[in-house]
Formats: sequence, C-alpha cells, structure tokens
Amino acid sequence: MPAPFQYKQPEHRLTLIPGPIEFSDDVLASMAIPSQAHTSPDFIYTFQYVLQNLRKLFKSTDANTQGYVLSGSGTLGWDVAATNIIEPGEKVLVLSTGFFSDSFAECLKVYGADVDVITAEIGDVVPLDKIKDQLQKEKYAAITITHVDTSTSVVSDVEAISKVVKEVSPETLIIVDGVCSVGVEDIEFDKWGLDFVLTASQKAIGVPAGLSIFYASERALSKALNKEKDTTFFASLKRWTPIMKAYESGSGAYFATPAVQTITALKTSLEEIFAEGLDKRLATQAKKSDEFKAKVKELDLTILPKNDKVAAHGLTAVYFPEGVNGPDLLKKLGEKGYTVAGGIHKKLVGKYFRVGHMGYSVYAGHIDSFEKALEESLKELKQ
Amino acid sequence: MPAPFQYKQPEHRLTLIPGPIEFSDDVLASMAIPSQAHTSPDFIYTFQYVLQNLRKLFKSTDANTQGYVLSGSGTLGWDVAATNIIEPGEKVLVLSTGFFSDSFAECLKVYGADVDVITAEIGDVVPLDKIKDQLQKEKYAAITITHVDTSTSVVSDVEAISKVVKEVSPETLIIVDGVCSVGVEDIEFDKWGLDFVLTASQKAIGVPAGLSIFYASERALSKALNKEKDTTFFASLKRWTPIMKAYESGSGAYFATPAVQTITALKTSLEEIFAEGLDKRLATQAKKSDEFKAKVKELDLTILPKNDKVAAHGLTAVYFPEGVNGPDLLKKLGEKGYTVAGGIHKKLVGKYFRVGHMGYSVYAGHIDSFEKALEESLKELKQ
Repeated sequence: MPAPFQYKQPEHRLTLIPGPIEFSDDVLASMAIPSQAHTSPDFIYTFQYVLQNLRKLFKSTDANTQGYVLSGSGTLGWDVAATNIIEPGEKVLVLSTGFFSDSFAECLKVYGADVDVITAEIGDVVPLDKIKDQLQKEKYAAITITHVDTSTSVVSDVEAISKVVKEVSPETLIIVDGVCSVGVEDIEFDKWGLDFVLTASQKAIGVPAGLSIFYASERALSKALNKEKDTTFFASLKRWTPIMKAYESGSGAYFATPAVQTITALKTSLEEIFAEGLDKRLATQAKKSDEFKAKVKELDLTILPKNDKVAAHGLTAVYFPEGVNGPDLLKKLGEKGYTVAGGIHKKLVGKYFRVGHMGYSVYAGHIDSFEKALEESLKELKQ
Repeated sequence: MPAPFQYKQPEHRLTLIPGPIEFSDDVLASMAIPSQAHTSPDFIYTFQYVLQNLRKLFKSTDANTQGYVLSGSGTLGWDVAATNIIEPGEKVLVLSTGFFSDSFAECLKVYGADVDVITAEIGDVVPLDKIKDQLQKEKYAAITITHVDTSTSVVSDVEAISKVVKEVSPETLIIVDGVCSVGVEDIEFDKWGLDFVLTASQKAIGVPAGLSIFYASERALSKALNKEKDTTFFASLKRWTPIMKAYESGSGAYFATPAVQTITALKTSLEEIFAEGLDKRLATQAKKSDEFKAKVKELDLTILPKNDKVAAHGLTAVYFPEGVNGPDLLKKLGEKGYTVAGGIHKKLVGKYFRVGHMGYSVYAGHIDSFEKALEESLKELKQ
C-alpha cells in the first residue's frame, strides 16, 4: 500500500537524538491515514503485513515464535517480560551497561523478581568470564541483556553472551532489551536462541513513538501461557497472543484498540527496510556509524565506549572536549539546526552528549551535514 | 500552533463505529508533524497545552487534581486504577452495564481486588436504590461506573450515583470509565467529587488511537503516592506524576518516551473542542444524537437502551429489524460507504448493530448522510 498522499515534510530542526529519530516523508504521511476500523479488512491487511514482517526483522523462521505490537512505550516491554515470563521470587541476572539496564532491573524488582546485577565499567561491557562465573554460582530463571544502552552507547555482544548462557545454563531464558538496537544492530532471534526481545517504534525502526514491539520464543510463550496466576492485565501475553495470531493470519480480534495510524506507519517503514534488505541496511548504518566515529576522532573528540568493538552503530556518546562548555556546544548545534541529546549516565551527567545516527537520517544526508556543523561549532567555541 | 500543513483527507469509507471515529483534517495533519525531541521546547509547549486543557475537559479547577497522557489503549487506564488507587484485598463495587464493565471487573480481580458486581438488566442502568443498599451492607474502597458501556450504548447517571456514594459511603473512591463518554457526555470532575476518570484518544476526544488519558483527584493521588509497595512499573502514578507535573509547568522530564505525534494531534483536537466551547459541543452532539434516535424510530427500529434517559449520546445500539438479516444490512451499509459495528453483548451477539455519532462526524455531515443510507438499505433489503 502506498502512503495515503504525497507529503514532503517542511524544513525543520533535525532531531539527531537516539530516538525519536527523523522519519521519512512516507512514514509521516502514513500517520495521517484516514480513520479505519480496527477490524476493517484494510487494517487487518496492514497489521498482518506488520506481524509477518516482524519475523524477518528478528530473523526468525520458527513458526512457534510470535511478534507483538502494542500501544505503549518501549518501557512497557519490560513490564511484559517481568510479568509474563518471570514468576515472582525467581532469580534474574541483569547485565548492566548503563541507566537503562538499571531501570530494567528496577522494573523486574517491582514485580517480585530476585535480581542480581553485574555492572560493567563505564564505557565497557560485562566481561564474558564474569557472566560465566555468575551463571555457574547461581541458578537463574532469566538473564537480561541491554543490547545497546542508550545512556552510554555501549553495545553488548548478544551472540557471545547467549553462547555462554547456552553452555553453562541452557534453561535460563535470554531477554534482550533491543530498544536502541532492533533495525540497526544484527539480531538473530532463532540462531542465537533468544527468548524475548523488546523494542520501541521511535528508534531504528523509524516510526513515531507510541508502539511497544516485542518478540517471544516458544519456551518464553509456553511459560507465559501456562502461568497459573495472572499478574498483569494490559501487558498480558495470555490476552495478546490470540489477538496477534488472529491478525497475523488475516482476521480481526479485540482486546484493546490498536493504534491504527502508527501501525500503518510501521508498515510503511518495514516496507522501506525490506526494499533495501535488512542486512544491506545494517551494513549501510554501520558504515555511516564508522564514518561518524572517524570524524569524531579527527576532531580530537573522545567517545564514551572504551573501544570500537563495544561502540554501538545507532548512536554515539561523545565527551565534551576540554575547554568547551557543554551547554554552549549544544546551543550552537541547536542554532545550526540540530537537536542532539545530553548525557544521562548518573556519574557523567554534563560531561558528554549523544548523537543518534540511525534510520532515515543516515539516508537523507543529515549525519553528513551534522558532522560539518559539529566541526564548525567546535571551531567557533574555541576561538 | 496550526497544523503542520494543509491536508484534505481523501474520500474514504466512513468509520461510524463507536471509535476509532472519523478525524478532522487538521488532527490527521498533526499526526504527520516532523520529528521533535520529547524534551524539545516545541514539544514541551504542546504537552503543556494538552495537560492544562485536560483540566477544562474534565471541568476541574482544583489545583491538586492531575491529568495524564500515556502511550497505551483505554484498557491501560483500568490497570492504572487497579494497581495505584486500589490495594490488593480491598473491596470494590462494580456497576455493570455491559461487556466493558465486566472486563474492568476482570482487570481489578487480576490485581487482587475483592470485587462485587451489580449487573443491570440489559439495556438499563443499575437502579440507585440497589447501589445504596449494597453500599450500606458492605464497606467498599472504591466503586466503578462505566459511564457509557460501548457494548450496549447505555449511559449511567454518574452525578446521581456519586451523590448516593457521598451520602452513604463518602470515603469510597469513585472511579469512572469514561472511554466512550469524555468529550460527548458531561463530566464534572470536581463538582461530582470524582476520583479517577479514564478515557482513550480515539473516541469523542477525536484523536487516533494510541493514548490512554486519565484524570485523578487529590485523594486518589494521595493513596497512590503513599503506597508502601509498588505493584506496577509502566502504569505507576508514582513514576508518572512528577513527569506530568513537569510538562504541565513547562519543563521536560523523562520516564518513558511520549507519543509526540499523537499528543500533537490531541492538542489540535482540544483546540477544536475549545474553539467551539465544551458545553456547546456537548449540546451539539446531544442534538445530533436525538435526531439520529428519532430517525431510527421513524424507520421502525428499536434501540437497545430501555428508554431515552439511559441512552448514550455518542453512539446508539440498534436491534436489527425482523425479516432483515443482520450481516446483509452491514454489508449493504458498507457498499454505501459506511462501516458500523456489530453488537458484542454476549447475550445479544448478532441481534444488533452499533453506530458511533460523536466528534467530527457530527460536524462533517456524516451522520446525516448515514441516516439516508440506512433508510435506503432497509428499503432495499425488504423488497
């Protein structure tokens, strides 16, 4: 289905934060599609396309896995994991690479999980041997990995961690926070043996905020669907699973009204992603990420991740250089037409900023023009 | 702020179900606003306008009440009520006028409430003396009223019920499901002494689905904010209250990313509502509702509500006439360009249909043209 009309968004200050990102004209046009009943044939077709293609996005061919799209924020995905595939009292191991990993741990605790946290050094990931040791010491019902912690721009090696988990404690469910990774970092749901990956619409998937998107394995689902005591209503996989299966198979169903317009925009964005091809897209975004990091180095700036291996591809956290006042730099970039984000790691607030470079902005040349603006801003501030 | 661009939505099949409703061109155009950071000055201004004007929508001047807008469906509002202002084990009295009242009861039970339900006769409301008796017999922490049950189009007299509650059991919190009422039925939050009213964007508020909107009293909030044990994360009033207060006072804050585009559309819709004036709007919609019901009678059709006093103003449930096959009628209306909804009350499935007549469709003449289509369709089917 094409976008409902030709739309070219007006010139505006570019949002180069790690989400919400800039959106393509067609995605935004799809947000303005006229009203459709949530059980109309048109919308059922849209939602079916979305659910079928989520399988491709998560690289799953296992018919027993299931994708979900709910109205909500990425945060809601934490609640879904905590209330459906973890029972109160069960032990969960959280690998922390920053603010968002810690918040996930907090959410798990609210719902009664017994949480242990291994915290990485700032700018680094949790070493594999530490994870192995801990899994050998203690039996965990689940482990959580924040694929990319948006507060530090550190990327964890989900494949390697999953391998360790499978080796030492194969029954431990692997839960991945993919909020800042799905659509820009590679994720092999089946091949790596993942059980639950959650994300949000406004990051690399390239759709306005408002959708909580997640993907569950057969064994995660089996645990959720066989729970004796329901511990959640809106976030219940028991309630949503038949709904998603119905839409994916081409019929309507109702639990709560889906966000028709935003899901239509998600369809448009998935069409754009698969028109390029997922692997090609990941490569394009990685290349732009490398270029951006090279430019940062060229400008004598230092990134927060300890080395390129642990540096994410969808955003980069950069220390303010000595002699430059952080707020002044952000203001100058703002004047030149770019919004970037301040740093939010508790120990480093005010010391760094974060630039999102994923999705549409990579293709529209926004990052290239931003690099120039950054260079000029630094020059002007050092004069 | 005007809509981001001039947009006239294309001709399309009109969605005259009880939500999602048809949306104005400007509301849809606002859905396509270019990306803004959730903490950008532009978006803070938008969200501030929305939160300030929710006070007017709920007719509250008490500075200690608070409005909320979360990414989610109306259903999420049930979770918010059940997990924040009711403690596990507390007794709750549910007044049931249909499918949605019963689902709310189910949600409350999931979170541990001890629920008693008084079920009205089909097409009627729960009699005031029955409510009074029950409140005298038993101490309830809260009572829930489904203002308009979308399954039956029955409207409860929230003012009269609240008066009874204040008289017999003033400490009982009054929770109102206003999903199919806010924006089309009168609600006097302060004057009637309500404690929690929840709604969704896609009904009479006139905005695409994706927002859970609710409003809390000082005493509901005080209970929520002083809870010893947190029982929810994403739906937590403890976590959202400082965020809403920040945005309403003109500064950004973060718990989970708000749905920037849909909230911008909500601002546009509130501007439209208050340009007409809320009371005038309610009167316009009530007049159209009366006209529609008169037309229904003229066509020898019978509505599901027992009498006009308990018939809602935003939608009408109508029995299929004898000798007319329900699906044939819905199909014929579809061919003429109108989507209406089937009936979902368990005991009456297949026996009635539901027509939404709220918001934009009242103003754009959709209801008038639908009346003609209904008349013609019936004629054609009876030939």
